[in-house]
Amino acid sequence: MSTACDVLGLGCVAVDDLLYVESFPPPDTKTRIRRRSRHCGGLTATALVAAARLGARCAYAGALGEDELSRFVLETFTREGIDTAERVFRPGARPVASIIVVDEQTGTRNIFFDLNGSQGAADDAPSADIIRACRVLLVDHFGVPGMVRAARLAREAGIPVVADLERDDVAGFAELLALVDHLIVSAEFARRLTGCGDPAAALPALGGPGRAVVAITVGEEGCYYALADGGTRHQPAFPVTPVDTTGCGDVFHGAYASALARGVDASGCVRFAAAAAALKATQPGGQAGIPDRATVEAFLTSAAGGAR
Amino acid sequence: MSTACDVLGLGCVAVDDLLYVESFPPPDTKTRIRRRSRHCGGLTATALVAAARLGARCAYAGALGEDELSRFVLETFTREGIDTAERVFRPGARPVASIIVVDEQTGTRNIFFDLNGSQGAADDAPSADIIRACRVLLVDHFGVPGMVRAARLAREAGIPVVADLERDDVAGFAELLALVDHLIVSAEFARRLTGCGDPAAALPALGGPGRAVVAITVGEEGCYYALADGGTRHQPAFPVTPVDTTGCGDVFHGAYASALARGVDASGCVRFAAAAAALKATQPGGQAGIPDRATVEAFLTSAAGGAR
Repeated sequence: MSTACDVLGLGCVAVDDLLYVESFPPPDTKTRIRRRSRHCGGLTATALVAAARLGARCAYAGALGEDELSRFVLETFTREGIDTAERVFRPGARPVASIIVVDEQTGTRNIFFDLNGSQGAADDAPSADIIRACRVLLVDHFGVPGMVRAARLAREAGIPVVADLERDDVAGFAELLALVDHLIVSAEFARRLTGCGDPAAALPALGGPGRAVVAITVGEEGCYYALADGGTRHQPAFPVTPVDTTGCGDVFHGAYASALARGVDASGCVRFAAAAAALKATQPGGQAGIPDRATVEAFLTSAAGGAR
Repeated sequence: MSTACDVLGLGCVAVDDLLYVESFPPPDTKTRIRRRSRHCGGLTATALVAAARLGARCAYAGALGEDELSRFVLETFTREGIDTAERVFRPGARPVASIIVVDEQTGTRNIFFDLNGSQGAADDAPSADIIRACRVLLVDHFGVPGMVRAARLAREAGIPVVADLERDDVAGFAELLALVDHLIVSAEFARRLTGCGDPAAALPALGGPGRAVVAITVGEEGCYYALADGGTRHQPAFPVTPVDTTGCGDVFHGAYASALARGVDASGCVRFAAAAAALKATQPGGQAGIPDRATVEAFLTSAAGGAR
């Protein structure tokens, strides 16, 4: 990338091909596709798009190849103003590729997902200078060795590491987890990591040396979070009528990272992220429904007014 | 195309994406794709690949766009030595696109096919000169108005029209059918067109003014055919152990066209085409299993020896 950025992502990018059919078929049959649409998704991709829409200068420097799906992701990033100049080229690397068959009668979805070739962070790229030039490093569990390297470089440079993690069954997970400054996980993943089904009670077990913030998102129950000094806080969910919650967790991470990059304190980051995710839930689509910063700020002002 | 060609095709090209899964899922579930592979197919594409492997100079001049699937077809054609210089560019035109979910336990296939944007022949292209410069024109039922125009130009120029038709519920079908010199259809489609389930008996109903040859392929029963002078002939099937009959009908058409282009008589064309299709059936894959001319000639020699 030409200059420093606010939020740097290295991880999971995905392409979803939605195929709309009259109804999901039984085995061994022939089904006409009525229409189709292609969407960019993935933990890091959606978080970066959210951060960019919310005003952060973002960059992607994970591994991709030159297949059509890699190109589709890069085109999406470019359209969203996300810098891809330091994208790491790796022959054969690809986004996570999903074929999603949508039953138009019931609305149910069958997801066929392909992880072959999906890499996320490269082991030894981008250069340390690139990593040290960001304000916030966003990591996920795709390409853990490269994530560990990048998180270590960031921590050494005093750059906060924000994590969007959904799986712990990957080699090096514990090492990566220990390097995370801002850990934001779903209630489901928090239960898996701690064995505790009560989000507020699970927070302490997710703390650790150097951890600035632990947050657990619980959908309509809002978000429980704790700072390094201890003490559990709660951000209530904003009252919205959800239409599509696809990508809301990733939007939360991206919005949080964007606020953190401009110096907002932890409570402010959580509140901003919760508002962005709530607004996203009112819109159909994953990335398509992500609001811009003015919309989130207006929503927060109006919510504060309503609370008076 | 730079020079005249033996076999000119304008019609259906297709791309099949095969997704291999452990077993085909029930509705509303998530399924991991173990591996995938992409293949070129379609009536005209497979016939042209067959004709090219069998030594004919082939060209494709149907409508395609600039999407990834159109590019994939053009790359396949180029690799097979098929001239695409006169391909007709139409924004939004695409191959037939199929997602085929293969159940690895049972081998059953679920085909999800997408006809949106598939055009085949353009209405008013390629130029009359291009059409008049071929030795054999291959038509199918994709882009019927353009097929009618091309077939009329070919007939006026004395160029034989070979047809690979599988559907009659398309506007202009009767007009196109009347312009076909060499009509080769499956037993199933012959029954649909004539109402007669006995291939030999159905042949006269498929004749007509200007029709040189009518042939009905009946799989293991071989091929019944009739010339303009009447009289039914029968080409027995070659005794092979079929592994995969995907594309055999299209290979028959392409092989027939390639033999016709080099001046072989009708019985010789049928015999050559039956041999090529039989050899294809012994190999897995659609286009992958198409033999070259030396293999077909050797097979015919050996079959003739065996018949002595």
